[in-house]
Amino acid sequence: MSEQIKIVLTDDEMPKQWYNIQADLPQPLPPPVTKDGTPIGPDALAPVFPMNLIEQEVSTQRWIDIPEPVLDILKIWRPSPLCRALRLEKALNTPAKIYYKNEGVSPAGSHKANTAVPQAYYNKIFGIKRLTSETGAGQWGSSIAMACKLIGLECKVYMVRISFDQKPFRKMMMNTWGAECIASPSNQTNTGRQILAQDPNTPGSLAIAISEAIEDAVTSKDTRYCLGSVLNHVLMHQTIIGLETKKQFAKINVTPDVVIGCCGGGSNFAGMAFPFISDKMNGKDIRIIGVEPEACPTLTRGPYVYDSGDVAMMTPLLAMHSLGHAFVPEPIHAGGLRYHGMAPLVSHVLRYGLIEATAVPQLECYKSAVLFAQTEGFIPAPETSHAIAQAIREANRAREEGKERVILINWSGHGLMDLSGYQAYFDGKLHDYAMAQADLDLSLSKIKDLPKPPAKVG
Amino acid sequence: MSEQIKIVLTDDEMPKQWYNIQADLPQPLPPPVTKDGTPIGPDALAPVFPMNLIEQEVSTQRWIDIPEPVLDILKIWRPSPLCRALRLEKALNTPAKIYYKNEGVSPAGSHKANTAVPQAYYNKIFGIKRLTSETGAGQWGSSIAMACKLIGLECKVYMVRISFDQKPFRKMMMNTWGAECIASPSNQTNTGRQILAQDPNTPGSLAIAISEAIEDAVTSKDTRYCLGSVLNHVLMHQTIIGLETKKQFAKINVTPDVVIGCCGGGSNFAGMAFPFISDKMNGKDIRIIGVEPEACPTLTRGPYVYDSGDVAMMTPLLAMHSLGHAFVPEPIHAGGLRYHGMAPLVSHVLRYGLIEATAVPQLECYKSAVLFAQTEGFIPAPETSHAIAQAIREANRAREEGKERVILINWSGHGLMDLSGYQAYFDGKLHDYAMAQADLDLSLSKIKDLPKPPAKVG
Repeated sequence: MSEQIKIVLTDDEMPKQWYNIQADLPQPLPPPVTKDGTPIGPDALAPVFPMNLIEQEVSTQRWIDIPEPVLDILKIWRPSPLCRALRLEKALNTPAKIYYKNEGVSPAGSHKANTAVPQAYYNKIFGIKRLTSETGAGQWGSSIAMACKLIGLECKVYMVRISFDQKPFRKMMMNTWGAECIASPSNQTNTGRQILAQDPNTPGSLAIAISEAIEDAVTSKDTRYCLGSVLNHVLMHQTIIGLETKKQFAKINVTPDVVIGCCGGGSNFAGMAFPFISDKMNGKDIRIIGVEPEACPTLTRGPYVYDSGDVAMMTPLLAMHSLGHAFVPEPIHAGGLRYHGMAPLVSHVLRYGLIEATAVPQLECYKSAVLFAQTEGFIPAPETSHAIAQAIREANRAREEGKERVILINWSGHGLMDLSGYQAYFDGKLHDYAMAQADLDLSLSKIKDLPKPPAKVG
Repeated sequence: MSEQIKIVLTDDEMPKQWYNIQADLPQPLPPPVTKDGTPIGPDALAPVFPMNLIEQEVSTQRWIDIPEPVLDILKIWRPSPLCRALRLEKALNTPAKIYYKNEGVSPAGSHKANTAVPQAYYNKIFGIKRLTSETGAGQWGSSIAMACKLIGLECKVYMVRISFDQKPFRKMMMNTWGAECIASPSNQTNTGRQILAQDPNTPGSLAIAISEAIEDAVTSKDTRYCLGSVLNHVLMHQTIIGLETKKQFAKINVTPDVVIGCCGGGSNFAGMAFPFISDKMNGKDIRIIGVEPEACPTLTRGPYVYDSGDVAMMTPLLAMHSLGHAFVPEPIHAGGLRYHGMAPLVSHVLRYGLIEATAVPQLECYKSAVLFAQTEGFIPAPETSHAIAQAIREANRAREEGKERVILINWSGHGLMDLSGYQAYFDGKLHDYAMAQADLDLSLSKIKDLPKPPAKVG
């Protein structure tokens, strides 16, 4: 077993530019539109986001320089290691080689910090003093809290009440980094007050928290809103993951045959996948698989539509796979994957056949996560376990087919803040949730009158 | 700021041998003795530990090969990064250069895994099937749980009841790695049953948990006991930290002027310090500082005596600095530093002037930890915050003296499982505990009849 296990890069070898897949799409992304179908230009977003990030959102420039102050912060934990999961391979008795890119090494424990730092930076140099955002399970909230402190911004995070109550450690993390974290719905916004008046005991939802954070941003001085996934610039910031991975594979003269990432809003998957899609468009034979929960099967069962990012329809309509913005996913532990929509860019590349999508059930994910922890040591986040489950399926198939494939997992974060899910699994309290067709039909009926995205071209 | 921040090593550059300071001591370590002062030989320890580890315990061979299967597991997260704390330096406005060795990258989040893996390995090849141990805050318990699963041993951890109740996530970690973790005192040992009969609501103590784990080991088939600090072989396994650090500094042509580690049982401190003590004995000008809590000032206020490792006096007497085995430290959050004794090797090198010792109060530690988290991102464990507090004192002194010193911190682990301590700090609920002289005198009076260690020679 004395093979090389870990491929590391030095600070100097860290990528200095992000990859913008919008430069290479077979067809351009349909624009965001209003409810009557009118395309929305950059200016309409200015009350919500700073113009320098809006410019990134719509840019078609292939490579965008990472600002030096951003590199200086990312270097604290990046480049992240690429590791061979030799012990997992042995347990699976597979001829496949499994590698995982460990994004759990960041201070907040996940890939989210990769975009939190540049988002805080661009707001800072635009003159913004304060950021608002929302968080569900807390990975994004803690990352943006840290980034704001390191960059020098105030930060307020609206955390879905049920998570706020269940995961008090996430709030403590945010407090440690100097951010304010309050339960949503709160009595500090009109949206929150209205919802509390109707139902004082509501558990809250991500959609409500988004509405509160946006309302706070657009009504407060020197304040903007920020989002941890879905948008084009967010996905682009994550491409540092895939770019590093390609450098690491080049060092050992290996190329992956299968690239796997979990898919919630799409940023973790895209961060690894997009630099490899670029190779695929250039003719390389590679499979790129986005993995979602069966309880929230956006890519595999949701249609490609124009839909809103939140239940109150405060955001523009985006062309994406969606389960309908009124859809409330079952309470699976992978809170980061409980989102009705999917990043427009991820939806677009699926439409053009550049990626595949699959859905896995919760119990298979926990079984896979436990096998990973018991062979490789690291305990994965519930979100990450979806990528691991699919990698194990692929490794088993490689064994059946007798093929020595190279399988790459984007290991999005550790599960040390999510251990209660593991305990519930061991205690036999978890079960699978497959989405009922009637629920999907009902949810989709609520968006049937929205404008339709343009037909696929080419 | 675009300087190199992180110095990484490849798998191949990881040290292949441990450094055994017993080869280089100015005088040999006094032997363990019985209560009547009779030296204890290796055979007496055989019911508790496997003979291959007992041989390491008494070895005076300078370099000991790390077995290849151990290296293969350590490589999953080692070599750990050495990082420059540039942003902390800037916040302190100091000319000092501060580096920290990040041991928080292990799957269980601390340096403890460095000895958990070899201890499990040596027991395994000796034919042992099952290990027992105790844990206070849970860092050691989770590390030995992981190591046993990766090596292939059963594992049972007796966790001090108050911690068991306060830190349910630690138990969940151990369960995820397949270990059994029960609250101590338990009804599964004679010691536990006796104590529960006297006081069913006792919060437990490390001393009780040690007694239970040893009793379980010596009365069960194919079972041995293991300990996460204090003993010579445990400290030696940790020297991989300092050996790696020296390689990393050599790459950038830097040598530290001040080496700092926190001191509980002594293994974290020794792991970094001993390879540098070797340089100091060869004439290098370097200060090496062990940092302990004011609430448990073993090195700074405890006499050098023969004392027992546990309250029930089940262990042999060790020559060490001790506050008396009956001493119960105040409930500071740095649970890993709440131990009445100190590793005999650490006590010995202090006696011969090769290291310094200092004690810091709890609030200064939290203040320092928060500054670290808000500048460098990573949230330190409460134990680690003691080393950080002392490093900040040294950095401030460097500023006052106008000296560009290089300060090295052994950053023993992250604090993601210890966030409630931070919250209590922010909520103003913490305070300092300086040990009262009367308490110390009382505790020491209970060991005044024990044999005395030999006088210092040379």
